[in-house]
Amino acid sequence: MYSMLRWPLRLLTLGRSRENSALSIAIQQPKGTYINKMDGKRALIVLAPGAEEMEFTIAADVLRRAGIIVTVAGLEGSEPVKCSRDVMIVPDKSLEDAVTDQVYDVIVLPGGLGGSTAMSNSKAVGELLHKQESAGRLIAAICAAPTALAKHGIATGKSLTSYPAMKPQLVEKYCYVDDQNVVQDGNLITSRGPGTAYEFALKISEQLAGTAKAQEIAKAMLLSYN
Amino acid sequence: MYSMLRWPLRLLTLGRSRENSALSIAIQQPKGTYINKMDGKRALIVLAPGAEEMEFTIAADVLRRAGIIVTVAGLEGSEPVKCSRDVMIVPDKSLEDAVTDQVYDVIVLPGGLGGSTAMSNSKAVGELLHKQESAGRLIAAICAAPTALAKHGIATGKSLTSYPAMKPQLVEKYCYVDDQNVVQDGNLITSRGPGTAYEFALKISEQLAGTAKAQEIAKAMLLSYN
Ligand SMILES: [Cu+]
Repeated sequence: MYSMLRWPLRLLTLGRSRENSALSIAIQQPKGTYINKMDGKRALIVLAPGAEEMEFTIAADVLRRAGIIVTVAGLEGSEPVKCSRDVMIVPDKSLEDAVTDQVYDVIVLPGGLGGSTAMSNSKAVGELLHKQESAGRLIAAICAAPTALAKHGIATGKSLTSYPAMKPQLVEKYCYVDDQNVVQDGNLITSRGPGTAYEFALKISEQLAGTAKAQEIAKAMLLSYN
Repeated sequence: MYSMLRWPLRLLTLGRSRENSALSIAIQQPKGTYINKMDGKRALIVLAPGAEEMEFTIAADVLRRAGIIVTVAGLEGSEPVKCSRDVMIVPDKSLEDAVTDQVYDVIVLPGGLGGSTAMSNSKAVGELLHKQESAGRLIAAICAAPTALAKHGIATGKSLTSYPAMKPQLVEKYCYVDDQNVVQDGNLITSRGPGTAYEFALKISEQLAGTAKAQEIAKAMLLSYN
């Protein structure tokens, strides 16, 4: 599924690196931290006020462990974001800046009631998700965040799951799955809550970096992944 | 064990609140977020550069879900801290400010190689841990952080666990446990890595807020806790 994306993405990356290689090295490549960044897959994680900080952090950390280039995009700008349990996290850049001249292999929406409501009410998030869906690229949402997909009319009719309390908001538009921690239907990956956040992040890692990489990083975190 | 702490803590808290009640409400009590803060247990989480952000965030979030008053203390000040996978987290205050006129029911040390090395080399962390140990209050460390305990000579001879790769640095001073995700020996709680961070945080929550509360918040996170 993703081989069709590989060439256009690589060309885009090479084109950008010729134009402003010093900039991209300085900003996006802390020395020696991750390998193969210029050829790597890219993830955008939307960080909204009230986001569930564990779901956010597990996604960002696990994807970076998998060698994926992660951009943490602040929904309302680049200022620190107060999450659902008052942990303050600084985005890499604003969502507006993050989506200028850059596409991402996956858009990740962490849960948290406040964060999900903010993403539901954001026109920018709606446009981003529609473009992502039209291009056949991955969208991943966990916990309360699938309600933002419903609000923006994304992936209607597909199988998905969510935090159990959100089920009533999703059963009409989607084929709701109760009994799996992570559900993938084509380009849509959804999951249920903090307790399933590692599986969610490992599933995204598997899709972008392969099963062997997902298993390797799971083991280093003292988890297992099949 | 903790009943002996209740009165001095309560008196201290009331004394502080009489002196500067507006300040303490504004800074420490976001309206309606957590109940019983004035009577609540207090946790200090040390946030050092290179901390494992999942282990940090899970501890902060889960303890706050349990109603524990959590202070995120920046080892090197109150500026944003770059964690092991480049997530930037803003501490509530500097460690220096956090330990001025305030005691904590538990000191929590998240892992991460860089963070653990920084805590190992910090005289302030050493003094804080020695006071905590002398007073018979809880100390909790996960992943690589038990090496900071060893460096500062804390809880020598007790049973503990850690990230497996740290075992060689710990076997001489401690009774090393390989086959448990979380080990408690008296006032010392230790755990192994990102994959055991929820159990670690739930064990601390159980100690300070009771088993029923730990079970309740585990269920809300779609986990179970016995
Ligand atoms: Cu670690």
